Amino acid sequence: MNAQGRPVLLFAYFRPDAEAWLEALRPAAELVEIRRWPEAGDPAEVDYIVAWQHPPGFLGQFPQVRAIFWIGAGVDQLLRDPELPDAPIVRMLDDSLSVGMAEYVAERVLHYHRLMPAYAEQQQRREWRPLAPPLARERQVAVLGLGEIGGACAATLASLGFAVRGWSRSGRSIPGVQVMNTPLGEVLRGCEIVVCVLPLTPETRGLLNRETFALLEGAYLINVGRGGHLVEADLIPALDAGRLAGATLDVFETEPLPADHPFWSDPRIVVTPHASALTHPASAGAGIVSNLRRALSGEPLAGVVDRARGY
Amino acid sequence: MNAQGRPVLLFAYFRPDAEAWLEALRPAAELVEIRRWPEAGDPAEVDYIVAWQHPPGFLGQFPQVRAIFWIGAGVDQLLRDPELPDAPIVRMLDDSLSVGMAEYVAERVLHYHRLMPAYAEQQQRREWRPLAPPLARERQVAVLGLGEIGGACAATLASLGFAVRGWSRSGRSIPGVQVMNTPLGEVLRGCEIVVCVLPLTPETRGLLNRETFALLEGAYLINVGRGGHLVEADLIPALDAGRLAGATLDVFETEPLPADHPFWSDPRIVVTPHASALTHPASAGAGIVSNLRRALSGEPLAGVVDRARGY
Repeated sequence: MNAQGRPVLLFAYFRPDAEAWLEALRPAAELVEIRRWPEAGDPAEVDYIVAWQHPPGFLGQFPQVRAIFWIGAGVDQLLRDPELPDAPIVRMLDDSLSVGMAEYVAERVLHYHRLMPAYAEQQQRREWRPLAPPLARERQVAVLGLGEIGGACAATLASLGFAVRGWSRSGRSIPGVQVMNTPLGEVLRGCEIVVCVLPLTPETRGLLNRETFALLEGAYLINVGRGGHLVEADLIPALDAGRLAGATLDVFETEPLPADHPFWSDPRIVVTPHASALTHPASAGAGIVSNLRRALSGEPLAGVVDRARGY
Repeated sequence: MNAQGRPVLLFAYFRPDAEAWLEALRPAAELVEIRRWPEAGDPAEVDYIVAWQHPPGFLGQFPQVRAIFWIGAGVDQLLRDPELPDAPIVRMLDDSLSVGMAEYVAERVLHYHRLMPAYAEQQQRREWRPLAPPLARERQVAVLGLGEIGGACAATLASLGFAVRGWSRSGRSIPGVQVMNTPLGEVLRGCEIVVCVLPLTPETRGLLNRETFALLEGAYLINVGRGGHLVEADLIPALDAGRLAGATLDVFETEPLPADHPFWSDPRIVVTPHASALTHPASAGAGIVSNLRRALSGEPLAGVVDRARGY
């Protein structure tokens, strides 16, 4: 809190579009003094931090911070920060994130379902040959992870008619989705399209690997979770072996994906640049402001991360 | 009717998958004698015909037929038959046709909406550059034609969140769709994606032409109606002029699309082989049988074509 007894919020954002975020956070100025990094003033005065992609060691300066608002849905990177203060971490709550992700996933699933890669090949050969995809209701799809975002993806796929299984530890119920809390092998059995929307935790790291792919027979993989879910070295062999028919990856172990990475040029792999869902500063910033208002009036914060679970 | 006083149904189908249709029609054998072309027997005995893609002059042999069941949703080809008997024409009523078409259209609209062609180009260049598409609710889409199939497409797009305008003469109401019965220019204003699902009639032939494209600013066109809706010579100039950003065509003036047609090799055009929706013999055949049952018990046939309207 500052010398006048007002709480201090530090905006510590290290990317180009900071102005849009500051604009969205402006209404918080009636509640707190907003400081913008690097003009943090006395670190001991900082009560709240809105942060993203800070340099190593940055957060260690603020041991007394009361909450950290993270501009992202996945907090795996933040939780690996050895200097993370012992304050509540609030992940991004932004409707536009789950809506955008569900649109991306619906596009990918429909694209594979409707055999569009095969039609593109036929067009190259000027070949007129109608194929006969089944209807969505005859297509088994698995969605791994039914959190806020995965749940939105599963619900959209179910509304399109797909036969959707959802893999969820919490067993939350979603209309039209068969929620399963079983070993992964049971979820994947007979699935033709597999969508990964899991949080990255020690349990889920490397889940998309050779053993998992061996359970599939020519399925399509869509990874919008984290690069760390996929054992990248296992992907092309699984395509070569016919376990996978194709893959779309939006996330990678190293981002941006290095220019010499083999995924770029494999015709069976679609690469998108971590763009399946973009946080919209206007709506997400408004969410931070209203959450801050709750905290200052003594109500519990929404969206606090469970550090033990990792999400 | 045959010598025993039983009505006669002639199955006159000129494509390879006739067996699946005959199988689906088999339950009608308790109602009628089923004959399979070319074993039609005495043409004067034929009461009902199930037909598709017959040779010219074929139907003229059956002037006394009581109804013609057409294995297709569009009857423009049939109505141009100069020897068409003066009997009710029943078009295909098959849920799987409209469901399949809605899936195809949803895939195409999402594909353009989510800028997938731009990402494919970036992948070719190994370029990592997130783009920022709006959410579907900020994307204006026009669906031209709200019949059984167009209505299903519009409803699916609305359920995905798109801002959908539907152009319909009858003004039928669809939840989430702004139904317009106005000049086409008003419907297209500000639209970024245009879907044609119209029946082909003298009024709609050539509707997708230079003047129509001049109303657009970098829109995507999806034609799943009929090849005759598009003035094919106007398409590439509209792409060159930036009126259209891209097009997906499932139907063509001449089908199969000739191997030397420029659409095959234009990277801005996606060609699919009249496969946006396939009739499934099992469900469609059952529909014919139940319709036949209605007719034989004196009830009105469902799905009778209005010859004056042309659909």
